[in-house]
Formats: sequence, C-alpha cells, structure tokens
Amino acid sequence: MAKNKPKLRLMMLGGLCEIGKNLTVLEYGDDILIIDCGLAFPDEDMLGIDLVIPDITYLEKNKEKIRGILLTHGHEDHIGAIPYVLRTINPPIYGTKLTLGILENKLAEHKLEKQAKLVTVYHGTVLKLGVFEAEFIRVNHSIADACCIAVKTPVGVVFHTGDFKLDVSPIGGEMMDLTRIGEYGRDGVLVMLGESTNAERPGFTPSERKVGSSLDQIFRSNTEKRVIVATFSSNVHRVQQIIDVSVRYGRKVAITGRSMINVIGAAVRLGYMNVPSGTLIDITEINRYPSNQLTIITTGSQGEPMSALYRMAFSEHSMVSLNSGDLVVLSSHAIPGNELLVGNIVNEMYKCGVDVYHDEAEVHVSGHACQEELKLMHALVKPKYFVPIHGEYRHLMQHKELAEFMGTPASNIFVMGIGDVLEFDENGAAKRAGSVPSGHVLIDGYGVGDVGNIVLRDRRHLSQDGLIVVVAAVDSSSGSIVSGPDIISRGFVYVRESEELMEDVKKLCESVFEEMLEDGVFEWNQMKNNIKETLTKYIYSKTKRKPMILPVIMNI
Amino acid sequence: MAKNKPKLRLMMLGGLCEIGKNLTVLEYGDDILIIDCGLAFPDEDMLGIDLVIPDITYLEKNKEKIRGILLTHGHEDHIGAIPYVLRTINPPIYGTKLTLGILENKLAEHKLEKQAKLVTVYHGTVLKLGVFEAEFIRVNHSIADACCIAVKTPVGVVFHTGDFKLDVSPIGGEMMDLTRIGEYGRDGVLVMLGESTNAERPGFTPSERKVGSSLDQIFRSNTEKRVIVATFSSNVHRVQQIIDVSVRYGRKVAITGRSMINVIGAAVRLGYMNVPSGTLIDITEINRYPSNQLTIITTGSQGEPMSALYRMAFSEHSMVSLNSGDLVVLSSHAIPGNELLVGNIVNEMYKCGVDVYHDEAEVHVSGHACQEELKLMHALVKPKYFVPIHGEYRHLMQHKELAEFMGTPASNIFVMGIGDVLEFDENGAAKRAGSVPSGHVLIDGYGVGDVGNIVLRDRRHLSQDGLIVVVAAVDSSSGSIVSGPDIISRGFVYVRESEELMEDVKKLCESVFEEMLEDGVFEWNQMKNNIKETLTKYIYSKTKRKPMILPVIMNI
Repeated sequence: MAKNKPKLRLMMLGGLCEIGKNLTVLEYGDDILIIDCGLAFPDEDMLGIDLVIPDITYLEKNKEKIRGILLTHGHEDHIGAIPYVLRTINPPIYGTKLTLGILENKLAEHKLEKQAKLVTVYHGTVLKLGVFEAEFIRVNHSIADACCIAVKTPVGVVFHTGDFKLDVSPIGGEMMDLTRIGEYGRDGVLVMLGESTNAERPGFTPSERKVGSSLDQIFRSNTEKRVIVATFSSNVHRVQQIIDVSVRYGRKVAITGRSMINVIGAAVRLGYMNVPSGTLIDITEINRYPSNQLTIITTGSQGEPMSALYRMAFSEHSMVSLNSGDLVVLSSHAIPGNELLVGNIVNEMYKCGVDVYHDEAEVHVSGHACQEELKLMHALVKPKYFVPIHGEYRHLMQHKELAEFMGTPASNIFVMGIGDVLEFDENGAAKRAGSVPSGHVLIDGYGVGDVGNIVLRDRRHLSQDGLIVVVAAVDSSSGSIVSGPDIISRGFVYVRESEELMEDVKKLCESVFEEMLEDGVFEWNQMKNNIKETLTKYIYSKTKRKPMILPVIMNI
Repeated sequence: MAKNKPKLRLMMLGGLCEIGKNLTVLEYGDDILIIDCGLAFPDEDMLGIDLVIPDITYLEKNKEKIRGILLTHGHEDHIGAIPYVLRTINPPIYGTKLTLGILENKLAEHKLEKQAKLVTVYHGTVLKLGVFEAEFIRVNHSIADACCIAVKTPVGVVFHTGDFKLDVSPIGGEMMDLTRIGEYGRDGVLVMLGESTNAERPGFTPSERKVGSSLDQIFRSNTEKRVIVATFSSNVHRVQQIIDVSVRYGRKVAITGRSMINVIGAAVRLGYMNVPSGTLIDITEINRYPSNQLTIITTGSQGEPMSALYRMAFSEHSMVSLNSGDLVVLSSHAIPGNELLVGNIVNEMYKCGVDVYHDEAEVHVSGHACQEELKLMHALVKPKYFVPIHGEYRHLMQHKELAEFMGTPASNIFVMGIGDVLEFDENGAAKRAGSVPSGHVLIDGYGVGDVGNIVLRDRRHLSQDGLIVVVAAVDSSSGSIVSGPDIISRGFVYVRESEELMEDVKKLCESVFEEMLEDGVFEWNQMKNNIKETLTKYIYSKTKRKPMILPVIMNI
C-alpha cells in the first residue's frame, strides 16, 4: 500500500478577530509558505505596550521548511512584524516594488537591511517555492501595488484576496485584474481566504477619484487660505491627488511628518508618484510663499499624539503655526478607538480659528471592499471552501453569511480562530485539525515578549490607585525595629492634604510590626502579607481605593 | 446721583467644551440662581478617577446668595454632581417629578435624602427667587419631563434651552411648548443659552416613535427568538415602547441591571410609564417561560464593563446565558470614546451565536436637536445675545455659525470658556468681564479633590513602565551599607526572564552607594537623585523603558 500522502494544512497566526497582525501559513509536507507578517497596535488595557506581533513559535520550530514570506501590500498590519520575526527566522521575502520600498525603510531603522533577503515581484510573477506555485495578481487598495495571491498546491488552489477593493478608475496603476482572478475561478479554486473589513457595509466602496473631486471643490472655494491636508502616509494615490489639485490651483507643496517624508520619498524614487518639478518645497521654506500659494501635506490624521498635525494643533510645531488663514482637511476616517483623539485635535484646531473639513466633506474613501465587491469576488473565484479573514468576529460572521448567499454551503465555510488548523486531504476534503501555538507577543521598547499578563496586571493596578511602599529595618536577633516603618506613596493621594490618613497608616504598620515581633513571628513573608492585608482593608474603608501595597523588610 | 445699579452676571462653571457637568450661574446683586449641576465621566488619561465634577469655589464663597438650583432634566450630566456639592452648599433644588425621582435614588445612595431640600415643579410653574422669576417650559428629550427655563431678571430675560429636541409625536407627554417659548420670544429675550450637541448634523432628529416601528419590525420577523434589548435606563419612553411591542407580541418582560430597575421603578411609581399588569416578571422567573414569550430589558448599551449586558456576553450573568436562540438589540448609539467597548461586546455576542441588531437597524434616535430644530428655536426666541453651550468646542463654533445665519450679529454671540463671566448692564448691553475660579474636581472613591495633576502624572508614569524600588540601610556613623541594596520591581519586566538585567541594576546601585559613601556624601537626597539618574539612563539604554525609580534609604 502506498504511503499516505501529506495533507495541506492552513493556519492563521494572525488576522482573525483582531484586525491587524495578518499572518497566514500554508504547509504541505516539508514546505511552508507564509503570506503577510503584520503587527497590531495595543489595546487600551495593554498599558505601556508599543506594538503587538503574532506568536511564531510554530514557525520557529519548523524554520527549515519555510520557503518564503509573500507580502500582499505594504501596510503595517501586513509587513510590520518582519523586523521582529527576522530575529529568529530569515526566509526570503517576496513583494512588489513599493511594498519592499516601504519595508526597506523599516528594516533600516532596525539595522536589518543587510540581513533581510528581499526579492521584488510584479503583478503576474509566478514563484515556484517547494511544492507551491504562487502568483501575484493586481488588486486595488488604499496603497499602490497591492496584490492578491493564488497558490497552486498538490491538492488545489488556495486563493488569498489580500486587502482589496474594486476601483474602475484608479489613480495610477490599473484596475484589479478581474480577468486573471476569473481564470483561476474557471479552472477551480479549492479554498478562498477573503478579507472581511467592510463586510457589514452594503454597496460598493467609491473610487479613490471621488476624493479628488471633493478636494478640487474645497480648493476652488478657498483660494485665499493656506490648505493643510492630513492623510495616511502610505496612501500614495491620495497624496498624488493632493499634489495634483495643488498644482492646478498654483500652489507649492510642503511635506511634514517623518513617515510622510519617508513614503513620498520612496514612492517618487520608485516611480509611483509624478510630481512636476518645482512643486515640492522644504517645510523650512514655507514662509517665503503667501498662504494662498501653499499646501502642506502632513501625518496625524488619526489624531496621534506627537504627530505633525497634533503638534500644529497644540502650537508645538516648529515650522507651522495655525491661524484663521488656514484650512485643514482630514482626508481619513477615524479608526475605531481613535475617535476621541481625532475629536480633540479638531477642537484644538477650531480654537486656533482654523476651518476644518472632515467626514461630511467626502474627503476620504475606504480601501476595503463593501458587500457588492465581496460578492463579485465570490462570483469570480467560486471557491469550494471559504475562510473569512481580516476582521473582527462580527465581520467574519457577516462575511460567512454573504458567502452562503453567494452559494457556498454553510458546511464548506470555516470561521477559524487564531492558531486553528484546517486540513485538506488528497481529495481536497477539508476538516478542522486541532491547533498550533499562537497569540500575542507584546513589544515594549526593545523587549519582545518580556512583558506579559502579570506585568500588565501590575501596571493596571498601579495606574488605578498608585502604590504605598512600607519599609522597615528589623534586627532579627533582638526582634526589634531598628528603623522605620517609613511610608512612601506615589499616585495615591496628595500627601499634604491627607496627612492624617498617612499618619494613621504609619501607626497601623507600627502596631502590626510590634505585635508580630512580640509574638516572635520572624517569618518575613507572613509579616509582609499581614501588612498588606491590614493596610488594604484600612485604606479601602477610608478612601474606597486599593493602592498596591509593597512591604519591604530589611534584615539587619 | 443714584447709586450704580447691579449688573447681571452670567457664568458657565460647566457644560462648555466638555459635554457633561453642566452648571450655569446667574448672579444679580445679592441673588444667585444655579441651572443644572452635572458630572462628567473621566477622560482616558485620568487614571483611576471615577467621576469629574465642576469646581464650585465661587458658589461656596457666595453661598448665602444662592436662591436655588433649577434642574432642566434628570440626566447625570445635569444632576450628577448634586450629592457632592451638597457637602458645602445646600440651597433648595427645583425640578419636575421624574427629575427629582431619579435624584432621590441618587441622594439615598449617598445618605443625603434627608438633608436635601427638594421642591417639585411642573411645566408652567413660575418661581420667584430673589429678584429672579423662573418659568419651567416643556421640551422633548431622551428622558421624560425635560424643561427649558426662562428667567426674568431686572435687565431682561435669560432663556436656557436645556437639552431638547422637537418631537411632534412624542411617546407619553406632549410636544415641546412652542407656544410659550414663542411668547417669550415675542416679548423679548435678552440672551439665549442654547445646547449645541448636534449642531454639526443637518436636518431634523427623527421622532422617538421611529424606534417603535423599527422594534415592531424586528419583533414581527423574529417570533421564535428570545429578545434582549439594551438601552439607557433613563430613557423611559424607549423602555415604554419596548414594553408595548413585547405586549403586542405576547411576551413577558424581565428587567436586569441596577439602574434600569431603579429608574423603571421610579417611572412606574410616578406615573410616567404604563405597564399592563402581569407583563413584568422577575429576572429569576425567566426559565419558566419559553424563549419566544420573553423580552429582557437590560443596561449596558455602551458596552460598560460589569453592566448586565456585559456579564451576559462574557457568560458571567447569573440568570441569563446567551445562545443562538437569542436576539440582542442595542437601542443606543456609542458615545464617543465607547466605540471599542461596544465593538467588543458585539463580537462576544456573535461568538455566543446571538443575532445582533444595532446602528443599521434604526433602533435608536438622538435626544438632541439637529440644525433645523436649532434654527426653529432661534426663530422662536429671537434673542438679542446668544451663548452656545453644551458641546465640544467645534459644536459651539458650528452653533455660532448657525446663529449668525439666523440673524444674530457675530458681535452679539459669545463663545465662552469655563469660568468666563458675561456681564449685562442696566441697558442690557453685554460685555466679557473676567472670570471666576473654575475647572475639574476629580472624584476617586470617597475622595473629592484629593487627586490632582501630580498624582495623575505618577499614575500615568507607573502605568507605562512600572516601577523599581531600591532600598538600602546605611549606618551614617560608619558610612557603610548595613543591608541591601535590595531591588524590587513591579510592572516592569518578567523578572525571571530578565535576571541578568536585574543583577546589573543591583550592581550598579551598589557601586553608586559605595562611591558616594567613600566620597563622604551623606546627603540622602543627593544620593537618591544619583541613584535615580544612573538607573534611569542605564535601564533606558538596555530596554528603551523608563520605569519610575524609587530609592529608599534607611538610616540606621
């Protein structure tokens, strides 16, 4: 009897439930392919954490099998974890020109540009990687040069949509390659992994060109003002349109914000943007031009603290100070969780006398497919199996419903959890097959993974009610207190206004120490626990707060 | 020559920029009137703070002048600070029946129900308070029994809109009293204070009745499911409609969530709700009825942690566990800042298999006037001066623009800051006249005002990178370390995974101590500063983090 053939295993190590940190793994026998390798930004309760990346334990253990990392596009949630995973794995990385251009900036910041093995691909490139054959196919998105990826495997084609929208009139580049996608569909696709970000939204996402006409209207009716436009630095087509409309109305363009300067630099260098010479001026030169001949393009459209727009709004920007001669356009939509940040910055700008255009002015369109475009994708690809990815749980469920509407039987749709394995046998029959290690790895400063639940729990505790340190020096031979107890608090109360309370706390500690020493208790841990319990109870009864109590006993 | 007549002074101690904590003060000679006395919920960066109330220093200093507190309606941001201000001032409090009913619950929680002097008023009641004559006039809002207030003063009428919308087909109660408002306008209004919450939104706010027809449709097409509706407890008309539609489809209604039980109790007792007998059942009885004969009304529509709906979603509710036989309606809209909380709870409910209806299903309408209703108010009241209130800065500016459009000259519109004073002379001419003490008072547990910027700064510091305590016992006569230095950290790193780092920190401390003691430095403060600086630098270079460093030296 013939040896069992290997099965195709599909694993999501990111990109489910949490939008962000996309990481898809395909495994067949001795070959592994990775699609995307992104990071996420921390939840509010991850205090002090800078970034979150996927747990790649499984990949580290199977590192010799990895044939490559394929990148669909250059957004942080698809490429941002690469500088961190390169510490333990180092496969070749395949992506289109702009994607790798952005990645190179990032690698340089981590001094990894020499170590990384980057390989440029084009729309239509087919890579032979182990048993796999992967083709990059053009899609539209809010960043140039985005792809979906079709992977031929021994048991059938895996089709990964990447992030996409359909734009029949894109700015630069071409429309999504419906024809090639349709050919895959006609020839048969085993399973489609489909992005779900806008699965709750009916209709079609408008063309990027819509933003151009809104901007034109704003520029036309505000010829006397200086115009400042904030947007995502990676949206080079948006930036192109802002430059185009500025040129049309006789304005010079200055750029501010580190990532904006980086990305525009890369995009111009690589030929993704077309800027008439003499248009760009340095931000230090803006005072040489009258307001009505100036456009400033800036980062900070999400209200991010310390971004260039934030510094302008709070009068901390070294070159730009806002006033009633300014018009600010927020060419973006607040990402969930950023609404308050954006609201704050808008209020501050109004206080400077600035006119602000945002949501109502139609100066932004989404980069993700709405329901009708998702249906189109299903109609073209006609997959046997479907796995909704890239979305919160409710988006995945909506996308599942949409897939059923398009004809995929519910039993052929798998809503997966992070780390879950979906296995396809040689006949292309799918079933769930356990899970692999997965989850968050937290990045705080240089530390990768050295902050976890206990540390976060302590930070949360400290953030709510502060702490009280109780220090005493005890002579264990005589059983007497040599010095202290001293009481030090931080983040608890204004000590000056609470002298009585702090005095009581000190007395309480003294009596606990004395009692225990008299009873001959020299178990420091027991003594510490006793201090903790007594103080916690007393302080809660007086203040309804529970500061962290940290008793320190020095043995003399 | 006659003595100068007093001037009318108008001060906002709350309700500007921050939505919430409304508090308006009118002063004329020896008389002060207060309109509303609300609280706000803390911003994200006010770590550990429970509530925020207005600074009432000015009122405390002029307490003998205060003739009363007039309440426009029973929302937290209009009545919530009363239990706290009653600690220092205790004027009579005037409000309609439901407003005082809700306030009484709150006072009882603070054991203040006996101290407070509550006086019930009705729509049309005119109070003579010192030189002032105040009339309560009906408006529509998302709570029953809401009022605007017209105050006759010696220099003219001050018209305070309260929070309002126009509902031509309200649920219970009548339409806003356009006639009486128009009479004031016809006779002449000196200044209008107008709420600005929805000043950015065009059109009219839909009638509360719209929600009823959406709910009817949902109930009609889901006859087999148990229906759980989450909404604001104070919206008694909403709750009435949920009960009505439940009765129509043959369902019993159970209530869960403390504030929901309290408010429905008060509303039924005071005659604001009409519940057919036999409709309400206790939440403990729900298992005696089949799903399709049950509606559950719950708190938690903002995703609040530990609310009844939150506990259901996370399987922590003692009586209700969600499953695929359930339908949840979020009859509410996420308040800015709560979007993520609401998103989380929706995802959790989807994971339980629940169907969720929210924004798209038109199951909520706002309680605030949109632009057309604001215009109507301006057209009726025709004030000489206008002060936009109750909104973020951008809303105030939008409302200012709207007022200009309606014919008030820009020079007669005052966008005030908190604490600013607007003064009207005997001829009714207005000018800015300095300011009075004002601002936030933070409430943390039982403490009112004992947490301020320094404490918050420490909490923020602790929340980001935790802390390191360095303790040493030093014999100052010999200049030697008797014990320690001991290093204790919390919220910084997993100590087990960072043994080397912590060992280095200890050695570094030892060398700082030894060096200084050798040099004969016994200035403890200098020693502490030295430890702080050295450790901060070293730890940042190794980890890119800046934990709080807390050196403690015990003198033996």
